[in-house]
Amino acid sequence: MARKKKTPRESFVSMTEMVLPNDTNTLNNLMGGRLMHWMDIVSAIAGQKHCGCVVVTASVDNISFRSPIPLGSVVTLRAKATRAFSSSVEIRIDVEAENIPEGKKVSSNSAYFTFVAVDKTGNPIEIPEVAPETEDEIELYNGALRRRQLRLILSGRMKPEEAKELKSIFDIK
Amino acid sequence: MARKKKTPRESFVSMTEMVLPNDTNTLNNLMGGRLMHWMDIVSAIAGQKHCGCVVVTASVDNISFRSPIPLGSVVTLRAKATRAFSSSVEIRIDVEAENIPEGKKVSSNSAYFTFVAVDKTGNPIEIPEVAPETEDEIELYNGALRRRQLRLILSGRMKPEEAKELKSIFDIK
Amino acid sequence: MARKKKTPRESFVSMTEMVLPNDTNTLNNLMGGRLMHWMDIVSAIAGQKHCGCVVVTASVDNISFRSPIPLGSVVTLRAKATRAFSSSVEIRIDVEAENIPEGKKVSSNSAYFTFVAVDKTGNPIEIPEVAPETEDEIELYNGALRRRQLRLILSGRMKPEEAKELKSIFDIK
Amino acid sequence: MARKKKTPRESFVSMTEMVLPNDTNTLNNLMGGRLMHWMDIVSAIAGQKHCGCVVVTASVDNISFRSPIPLGSVVTLRAKATRAFSSSVEIRIDVEAENIPEGKKVSSNSAYFTFVAVDKTGNPIEIPEVAPETEDEIELYNGALRRRQLRLILSGRMKPEEAKELKSIFDIK
Amino acid sequence: MARKKKTPRESFVSMTEMVLPNDTNTLNNLMGGRLMHWMDIVSAIAGQKHCGCVVVTASVDNISFRSPIPLGSVVTLRAKATRAFSSSVEIRIDVEAENIPEGKKVSSNSAYFTFVAVDKTGNPIEIPEVAPETEDEIELYNGALRRRQLRLILSGRMKPEEAKELKSIFDIK
Amino acid sequence: MARKKKTPRESFVSMTEMVLPNDTNTLNNLMGGRLMHWMDIVSAIAGQKHCGCVVVTASVDNISFRSPIPLGSVVTLRAKATRAFSSSVEIRIDVEAENIPEGKKVSSNSAYFTFVAVDKTGNPIEIPEVAPETEDEIELYNGALRRRQLRLILSGRMKPEEAKELKSIFDIK
Repeated sequence: MARKKKTPRESFVSMTEMVLPNDTNTLNNLMGGRLMHWMDIVSAIAGQKHCGCVVVTASVDNISFRSPIPLGSVVTLRAKATRAFSSSVEIRIDVEAENIPEGKKVSSNSAYFTFVAVDKTGNPIEIPEVAPETEDEIELYNGALRRRQLRLILSGRMKPEEAKELKSIFDIK
Repeated sequence: MARKKKTPRESFVSMTEMVLPNDTNTLNNLMGGRLMHWMDIVSAIAGQKHCGCVVVTASVDNISFRSPIPLGSVVTLRAKATRAFSSSVEIRIDVEAENIPEGKKVSSNSAYFTFVAVDKTGNPIEIPEVAPETEDEIELYNGALRRRQLRLILSGRMKPEEAKELKSIFDIK
Repeated sequence: MARKKKTPRESFVSMTEMVLPNDTNTLNNLMGGRLMHWMDIVSAIAGQKHCGCVVVTASVDNISFRSPIPLGSVVTLRAKATRAFSSSVEIRIDVEAENIPEGKKVSSNSAYFTFVAVDKTGNPIEIPEVAPETEDEIELYNGALRRRQLRLILSGRMKPEEAKELKSIFDIK
Repeated sequence: MARKKKTPRESFVSMTEMVLPNDTNTLNNLMGGRLMHWMDIVSAIAGQKHCGCVVVTASVDNISFRSPIPLGSVVTLRAKATRAFSSSVEIRIDVEAENIPEGKKVSSNSAYFTFVAVDKTGNPIEIPEVAPETEDEIELYNGALRRRQLRLILSGRMKPEEAKELKSIFDIK
Repeated sequence: MARKKKTPRESFVSMTEMVLPNDTNTLNNLMGGRLMHWMDIVSAIAGQKHCGCVVVTASVDNISFRSPIPLGSVVTLRAKATRAFSSSVEIRIDVEAENIPEGKKVSSNSAYFTFVAVDKTGNPIEIPEVAPETEDEIELYNGALRRRQLRLILSGRMKPEEAKELKSIFDIK
Repeated sequence: MARKKKTPRESFVSMTEMVLPNDTNTLNNLMGGRLMHWMDIVSAIAGQKHCGCVVVTASVDNISFRSPIPLGSVVTLRAKATRAFSSSVEIRIDVEAENIPEGKKVSSNSAYFTFVAVDKTGNPIEIPEVAPETEDEIELYNGALRRRQLRLILSGRMKPEEAKELKSIFDIK
């Protein structure tokens, strides 16, 4: 029997936070650790929406922090599912920061978090597939395989030479 | 004139936290986002100790979360510098979790954070080199180049075919 | 010269929060005070977006809390400007709560917050008008006058007999 | 059999908080949302004291925020029951703010919160009546009926034309 | 010229807190560290009220924690000045805990905190004397000298043999 | 049968915290109450490590706070068991604060916390003895008896004239 499918739109979540004093470092900019905490919450919600059950963080891909986000900024995080594997789902998060009184968007950022869907005793359960709709979503869906191989290699669960899709980005026959 | 050198031991920091109710998800386990927040603080302190100035989070490498860490656990995070580039330093963090009343270490984890050293106006400044002492530290020092190439590729600032050190792990001449 | 106009869509903000242990009372439901704190933040952001400057909370209208929102729920708050007066703006907030693993939306709620737009020294400044687009927005725009009169009466700054629009709801010629 | 009675004095609670950095907005003044959170806690305690059981927030009446309360101020909140209905109780909260080093009381504010008394499964239970003692308390007791009608109208549970006590403030025969 | 005097009543502060999940240990009781944090805030406010300026914590006397305070309890802390020295003031704090739904006061506790009054640059300044009014206050006033000697001995700033008042409690001629 | 023994080294814990805005008073220095909260957590962990079970704070000895610890400082707390009694253990905590960008250690502090080891129902249980190894540890072990007598006297559970070890510090035959 075919697995259920859900579009990325169905798991989409938008979360807005204001940068308060306790979120900042001594330069009065948002701390990376606080931003990651927010990313984890917004993507866990998107994961829950896709899977329809509790999800736990399995991994986080490389994140790079560009321009600093000053105190008082409004940070918007948008998350949606890109692709599901048997019981895990990859979520993409896009971050935008805006300093409204000064009239400028100050930063932009993105990340991939992976979650495992679990039942009440914490055991993994099967989840719906992701059915991408837009061109962007299809590209994210296709790239997910490559990102997954990189994750498996980096956590020591796959040998580099087996990572066919990933190897292709290094231009190798 | 030669740049100053510091050993990883000089930047070593150990931080211990207890998992309290607000740190947990609905399964009563530590949330990934909270753990990343702690990782950011402990590695920023190690970065400060190595650089002798304020540092800001530049990037986070892939993290995978293994076993869940239950409420009441004692989490120990250990951080030290592995290698410095002109104004940035890579920090490795090792995480251990222990449930003392139940007599078991429940988890183990590691991650790499990169920080940029800045002066009071937020501009990057030159920092000391890392002088590894033990075998482990030397291996971490050597691997740092490969991890850096991966970071640059993933953030779009290097072409895959230029990443010599990284390519070697895919077994390519 | 005519004052600038902005649609409610331009100030629209959506914020999502997860109910964590510290947000709950001893029945394991979200505390009213925490929900009001979130309402204040999301509507302040909508106020900032409409006014293009810092805003401070001036008043909160009657709020009634219906069904309890249990631990682990995902709370979505949506806010947008309904009508502006010379230097103050009314924001409507709609709250939805969803318990995803149990598959039910548990609650729904709405509120009006009023904000004053201020410059850096805290003095009120003139702000754009609100130009409603949809039928709903026009109704909210029209009702704002009545709500404003009630606010002024309740805070002792208007005599009840002067509140023409408000009186009409009591069916009086 | 007659219902038990309690005086407002028996439910009186005083709570003092210091305005810390994380409680403030970018103008360094107390955020309205934080103040409402404190109001909710102090009035819930007064509600518990009157009812002798757990209480949950049912509604909040109009609040207007006057002068800003700067960082470092000492905020005193005083709460007591004004009138009880079968299983709900209205609490009045008075707020005072003082900046001691600068030698001035900076603000004053009041609000009404209503709570429902519940048993361990969350079902409403009968509570004692309020027996006002002072002139002030009698006035608050009498006004409670009017405020209750307004609450019911605003939440759509009473028709304006039925609100006899409330209508009187609009000077209508 | 005589120094100004203030009664303990003038510095009296009462603070009420509810024990929330994040304040508790794994036995669901209030953590000692959180209680001390509250003690510090309430006594700092009493110190500010006595001194009329900013005060900083100088020392804490022995505290012993008796019965555990369970989640959901209402904790009342009462603080007032007992005696002032040239630029420091001793504050006594009394703690009571009540579990209202279960109808019992669960605990009682007391402590002495000492604060130094400082100007805006952090330098100690002269403060009013304490003028005790009741018998209790006079006893606290007299005991303050003995407690101060103990503090000075324990922090290494006085030799035991010079502590005349303290020695008397050991029954020595 | 002989009781089990553990060295202080086996219970040693090091904890590092960064002073963030919400930890500070209006002079931008760490509040005493926050520091005590950290002391309680680090010493509870050391207590757990020594006892191998849950521990609850029983008492805190005199603490004096010396120089202020400014915002942005790195605070290191080190804790270890000094001596165990039948079901309670004394923990010594040493505190160091460092302002890395300004290149100075700003403060140093120490304290003794006592914990009771309890089983899951909260009843005291027997714990291992402490076997001191270094000279410092032996001195701490010996002094523990004197500190215990002082604690018992101050909490009214011992008469001063019975405190033999303590009396000796007053130079009395």
